[in-house]
Amino acid sequence: MIKITDKIILGIDPGTVIMGFGLIHIKGSEMKLIELDVIKLDTDDDHTIRLQRIFAAVTELVKKHKPDEFAIEAPFFGKNVQSMLKLGRAQGVAMAAALNFEVPIFEYSPKKIKLSITGNGNAAKEQVAAMLQQILKFTNNNKYLDATDALAVAVCHHFQSKPNMQSAKKTYKNWGAFLTDNPGRKG
Amino acid sequence: MIKITDKIILGIDPGTVIMGFGLIHIKGSEMKLIELDVIKLDTDDDHTIRLQRIFAAVTELVKKHKPDEFAIEAPFFGKNVQSMLKLGRAQGVAMAAALNFEVPIFEYSPKKIKLSITGNGNAAKEQVAAMLQQILKFTNNNKYLDATDALAVAVCHHFQSKPNMQSAKKTYKNWGAFLTDNPGRKG
Repeated sequence: MIKITDKIILGIDPGTVIMGFGLIHIKGSEMKLIELDVIKLDTDDDHTIRLQRIFAAVTELVKKHKPDEFAIEAPFFGKNVQSMLKLGRAQGVAMAAALNFEVPIFEYSPKKIKLSITGNGNAAKEQVAAMLQQILKFTNNNKYLDATDALAVAVCHHFQSKPNMQSAKKTYKNWGAFLTDNPGRKG
Repeated sequence: MIKITDKIILGIDPGTVIMGFGLIHIKGSEMKLIELDVIKLDTDDDHTIRLQRIFAAVTELVKKHKPDEFAIEAPFFGKNVQSMLKLGRAQGVAMAAALNFEVPIFEYSPKKIKLSITGNGNAAKEQVAAMLQQILKFTNNNKYLDATDALAVAVCHHFQSKPNMQSAKKTYKNWGAFLTDNPGRKG
């Protein structure tokens, strides 16, 4: 019997003011949106309290949805070193919540994410959001738009880990052959 | 009965190559060194694996020593935004390991740490290390010197949370009066 892909991917965009998340379910060649939302962090709270909220929120998502993989954006630029330290901490606690449950982490650059979703590495946020709405059939919603960065990295991870993106016609005789071609893939 | 301070402070300096840690035990007016060491992260491992090691190592320290408080350095400068993101992530996973066990986190700027230990906010690393050796009675050791940044933040936190650093002669009639003066302090 050939085992078909059946996995849940959690994408996280942990800002220090808003944390976006998107969950998708991949079953065979189908991709479905499970949940897409944001958690607003109270700006009156100090940095540590916000980190605690992010850790608690991601832990809850991991416990509830049991994702097989966790995807996050790895930006290579930023406003200044101080904001990058804060962003790094926010990402770190979100990643730790995944590591705590042994969920493997994958990271992609913003350019790779945009390229993967729209075919253009310099696409605007709105273009990415519009493409995601089309692929995953959800309607425009301001709340959702804040979370599309998180969804984008989850979808990007799916596209990147999909076997044979470039040669979609290639077929595998069996699961063993597939695994040989995709050594990083879990059986 | 007047309750005397009896607490363990864990200081962490989570770099992306070496993670230093220092544990001190405060009992009344005495401060003792419990442990001071480093964990070397394999530079062949990718960033995520190293984050996983930091999370696992800090989790183990928290489980083993049950610290009451966790202290970390909050740098306000860095080589570049990319290194600050990586440092932030390393700090984030270490902080998450503490948050996971509800250990409160305190952070101090490098200047404040140096000032607190040596009386000079611009002291060299070696001066800080020498002062710590004197205060905590341990001998010079290269391995230990790599960990003194972590120990320094733990000791700084103790000095900062100590009642009446500037007016050491003030005494409290009772614990209630002490708490009134130190509202952030746990009973």
